[in-house]
Amino acid sequence: MSTTTEEVTAQLVAEVTNLLTEHAEILDQNELEKWPELFTHDACYRVLSRENVAQGLPAPIIYYYSQGMLKDRVTALRDALTYEFVYTRHITSPPRIKLTADKQVHVQSNFSIYHTTERGETRLYAVGAYEDVLTRVDQQLRFRNRDIILDTFAVPNNIATPL
Amino acid sequence: MSTTTEEVTAQLVAEVTNLLTEHAEILDQNELEKWPELFTHDACYRVLSRENVAQGLPAPIIYYYSQGMLKDRVTALRDALTYEFVYTRHITSPPRIKLTADKQVHVQSNFSIYHTTERGETRLYAVGAYEDVLTRVDQQLRFRNRDIILDTFAVPNNIATPL
Amino acid sequence: MSTTTEEVTAQLVAEVTNLLTEHAEILDQNELEKWPELFTHDACYRVLSRENVAQGLPAPIIYYYSQGMLKDRVTALRDALTYEFVYTRHITSPPRIKLTADKQVHVQSNFSIYHTTERGETRLYAVGAYEDVLTRVDQQLRFRNRDIILDTFAVPNNIATPL
Repeated sequence: MSTTTEEVTAQLVAEVTNLLTEHAEILDQNELEKWPELFTHDACYRVLSRENVAQGLPAPIIYYYSQGMLKDRVTALRDALTYEFVYTRHITSPPRIKLTADKQVHVQSNFSIYHTTERGETRLYAVGAYEDVLTRVDQQLRFRNRDIILDTFAVPNNIATPL
Repeated sequence: MSTTTEEVTAQLVAEVTNLLTEHAEILDQNELEKWPELFTHDACYRVLSRENVAQGLPAPIIYYYSQGMLKDRVTALRDALTYEFVYTRHITSPPRIKLTADKQVHVQSNFSIYHTTERGETRLYAVGAYEDVLTRVDQQLRFRNRDIILDTFAVPNNIATPL
Repeated sequence: MSTTTEEVTAQLVAEVTNLLTEHAEILDQNELEKWPELFTHDACYRVLSRENVAQGLPAPIIYYYSQGMLKDRVTALRDALTYEFVYTRHITSPPRIKLTADKQVHVQSNFSIYHTTERGETRLYAVGAYEDVLTRVDQQLRFRNRDIILDTFAVPNNIATPL
């Protein structure tokens, strides 16, 4: 579907980094309504445990296969689900960009996410990796596939929120 | 005030990243005397708790409004204040650069800071975000405004040192 | 020895970042056999405690002075040593690149490494800094010198694995 013929130029690195950091900022600022806009209409979004991936058991913990499902998720989070409030903060490593034979922009980046309570106490929530396939929509880079490989699964119950 | 007409080129990203990592390295190497040199003469430096910012209560925890005040702070830290020695290490995420209508270079980046004792024991000290406005002084990017949004405020007492 | 005449262009930043993130990914994916290939034949690899470096006592904890020694290390890890299995995850900050009078590419970057058990429990393993000298081999950037400054030394015993 994509006809992109990207090269890993410094400009592409800057664009990819901008998309990744925008994603993190949106979540950290609790601006969930903006989150689905970073994905294509036919986007695939999965959360996978690292152990399952390592064992070749890719059954996802979470699996959304359209932008509409992401929007539904945001609505559910806003309207229905209750969970203890925390501030989140994403610390991400610089992205690693790979152009594959299919001319897609494949990106791998590592993350750690911290949660801070209203009492100002911070704890590590989870670490893992984003494995993304990006494509252009009206010139803008967007997520076509985002796999979140979650190392940490001994986590509390609000994995319902986007990572 | 500034007449810069920057674009978010890859070269600008490289320059911004260099300033941010130089700041972190100076602090981690305990070369405090170099720290004020990264700021403009009329720089504004604030530490704000994230909770206050979220509630629209922007009373800063720390507020310096000139390079001279930063230098005074360094002198005080070197001469007068006593605090338990620790090694610090900043882990920062790639910067997110936004050019606003005022043509300034606005930058947001997330940080985690670790403290390690002389016994080699490391603990998370604080996480948060830098919100910066950069400008050029003799071609070099410098901090004009640096707001430090501190998620973690259940921290020990040496917040007196620069973050 | 090197005749490179690099400038800190955005393209160089992209190449350096790619090498650093490839190194992290190889270790996190437990693809140790690929690890020595990132180094020159005459590479020097050292692990140093931060406290020793600060005191001017640069006796390394680990010291390899050729690519062959790195390969031997991998063989030993695969064949002989036993250690508790953990997943590792490197979170690294953007690199700081300095071109020195000798025209080499000097790079400093900070890291935190997390270990996750098979039960999905994550803990901070170590923080520190990479201090690298890079050179080109057949156009590709490779590590000529890698010093790992380890803040955390109150760590368990599997420091035998590459950091």
